[in-house]
Amino acid sequence: MPHPSGLITLLTDFGDRDSFVASMKGVVLTINPHATFVDLSHHVPPHSVEAAAYLLDSCYRYFPKGTVNVAVVDPGVGSERRALIAKSERYFFLAPDNGLLTYILADNPEMEVREIENEDYRLPSAGHTFDGRDLFAQAAAWLTKQQSFESFGRLVTDCKTFTIATPTWEGKTLVGEIIHVDRFGNLISNLTQQHLEEVRSSAKRRQPSIRIGKQAIEGLVACYSEGAEGQPSALIDSDGKLEVFVKEASVSDLLKAGRGARIEVS
Amino acid sequence: MPHPSGLITLLTDFGDRDSFVASMKGVVLTINPHATFVDLSHHVPPHSVEAAAYLLDSCYRYFPKGTVNVAVVDPGVGSERRALIAKSERYFFLAPDNGLLTYILADNPEMEVREIENEDYRLPSAGHTFDGRDLFAQAAAWLTKQQSFESFGRLVTDCKTFTIATPTWEGKTLVGEIIHVDRFGNLISNLTQQHLEEVRSSAKRRQPSIRIGKQAIEGLVACYSEGAEGQPSALIDSDGKLEVFVKEASVSDLLKAGRGARIEVS
Amino acid sequence: MPHPSGLITLLTDFGDRDSFVASMKGVVLTINPHATFVDLSHHVPPHSVEAAAYLLDSCYRYFPKGTVNVAVVDPGVGSERRALIAKSERYFFLAPDNGLLTYILADNPEMEVREIENEDYRLPSAGHTFDGRDLFAQAAAWLTKQQSFESFGRLVTDCKTFTIATPTWEGKTLVGEIIHVDRFGNLISNLTQQHLEEVRSSAKRRQPSIRIGKQAIEGLVACYSEGAEGQPSALIDSDGKLEVFVKEASVSDLLKAGRGARIEVS
Repeated sequence: MPHPSGLITLLTDFGDRDSFVASMKGVVLTINPHATFVDLSHHVPPHSVEAAAYLLDSCYRYFPKGTVNVAVVDPGVGSERRALIAKSERYFFLAPDNGLLTYILADNPEMEVREIENEDYRLPSAGHTFDGRDLFAQAAAWLTKQQSFESFGRLVTDCKTFTIATPTWEGKTLVGEIIHVDRFGNLISNLTQQHLEEVRSSAKRRQPSIRIGKQAIEGLVACYSEGAEGQPSALIDSDGKLEVFVKEASVSDLLKAGRGARIEVS
Repeated sequence: MPHPSGLITLLTDFGDRDSFVASMKGVVLTINPHATFVDLSHHVPPHSVEAAAYLLDSCYRYFPKGTVNVAVVDPGVGSERRALIAKSERYFFLAPDNGLLTYILADNPEMEVREIENEDYRLPSAGHTFDGRDLFAQAAAWLTKQQSFESFGRLVTDCKTFTIATPTWEGKTLVGEIIHVDRFGNLISNLTQQHLEEVRSSAKRRQPSIRIGKQAIEGLVACYSEGAEGQPSALIDSDGKLEVFVKEASVSDLLKAGRGARIEVS
Repeated sequence: MPHPSGLITLLTDFGDRDSFVASMKGVVLTINPHATFVDLSHHVPPHSVEAAAYLLDSCYRYFPKGTVNVAVVDPGVGSERRALIAKSERYFFLAPDNGLLTYILADNPEMEVREIENEDYRLPSAGHTFDGRDLFAQAAAWLTKQQSFESFGRLVTDCKTFTIATPTWEGKTLVGEIIHVDRFGNLISNLTQQHLEEVRSSAKRRQPSIRIGKQAIEGLVACYSEGAEGQPSALIDSDGKLEVFVKEASVSDLLKAGRGARIEVS
């Protein structure tokens, strides 16, 4: 079982103009002055639970055992939607029950999940618009103060999740989709190195043909600087995913392609 | 009396592109390696003292006793405007004397305020454009090293403040204004739950009628997800303030309303 | 010799939307849970090595001795470009060998620089797109765990650098250039207080005439608030550099001038 460290990651759609994130940190530090924070991102597009789920999945494995991950993209705040606290073999997660933990649950099916019901872990407030501060930050801080996991509330076995897009075969073509556009405009797909090897062994060719929209890309390069100038190229990125890019430019702008775009490999 | 902890909050209009904020932190850590930081926001609109004052007020109460709040929105940097250091019953504040502490002074009228005059707490520099680094960060760091509060400089009893907009009655209508637009485009007013109760008891109606520009809103909802799709709704937010929103969209964009907009309740 | 502290600064072009920076911090904290971070900036324009070099130079001196500065603007990631680790009399630096350390090397010509070759300091990964996480964060963390400096790899004596723009005389006019546009739209030049004194003694005038594009500026003011309304003014900033500004507005927008613009003093 992991022991909650004082390290808390924060993932929200709160942006950086307001004092929302600072209020959360103040609440935590009032309960546990030794807590430390890593901001995962606060620039999730407003209300985009799926984008937040992707970001959480993309980096939680890089944190030390015992890290407490707080993720608040919460259009249902104040409604009957449940607030969750979960523990995997290595980590803790707090998030609204709206699909934000979808990838985490897929990777850690044995994970213990509870509803945060205990009113001792809630800050009384006039309204119901800021559970990030009044509930999730409070509960995370108390968790790092070694409150028992059971004390938060009852077990939850029916967490809300969304369907994770998985590649499908259409004849000898494997069809995936773009699941993230990064800051550089690179298009990250749900096709992995392993998928490409399946295509290779099926097609008996060494190099894959990739198609995204009307753009064909022949073969892979090993790194960004091997990409052609002004032309889309593809590579396997450091997370093992097939990624389409243009050298030192935004392929998302060039191809006008974004999240959800279809990508084919044959 | 509060004892200054090593926890420093930073509020500026310095943005995140330059190294301004990092320089401030480096200066603090050179004096006190054990200091820790919470970034309140660095995205105050450039030179907007009133916006910064609002943000500081919106979250300082959530921090532990002894927190040192450094707020630098400072169009008068290098001029004769004074640099202030203040202590309330629980907190410390450093800011230029330009109205930034208006709400803090209103809430803590007994607060001791001094001018930062002591040259020992100033970093010598070629020019006079960056007191955030050369004065405020230095002074904050020395404060956390337990220098006496008196050592900073003389008492100030005539701090510059701006007039806080307060709601006024026009017949049976209470007229307030929008004092903040948050990252989601929600419009936060200076009308509180208590104001609404006054209107209720005056009008002998259970639910208020709200008007902002040409938009009428009947009654309140309890949380964002109860709002109508595509239609402005209103609620009391977690800070006890009347807030106008559109479910999962920006009511500020929809109504083309922003800071200073008039809002009526009857 | 400096002793590496657990304080790590991070400078990248990774932005704040993705989890890139958080992953780097997670990697560091997994190796050294006591490490602390200051974000220098993550908003370097994508792939702009020179802009990053300027930012690093603008603030590293303000940090305590032993600070480990990690700078990753790395269009050549995954190629044959070397990864560098360096130590000056006071600081450590990790960066790709692409010119990012140009100013640091100019200021610290005696600096010991090594290539990060030791595979023990690399995180195995599927691709070659994220050395920020897989190499630089790893190596920085191991450095703070007191691994010997020699253990990283062989000495490098031919670091890649770009030519630092230096002012030149054209008759009695000193010609410099704009090397940075800050968040406020202020134009920071490579002309210093000392340059202005040379011009003064050459021209035997007390106040310099400044020209940028078609705009003439007569003399200097002492601080921003002394600038004329709506008119460009000039001053020596807190870093000792000649800076052109408009009071509470963006002179970069007003003059449509940016990085690389010519500025003359006579």
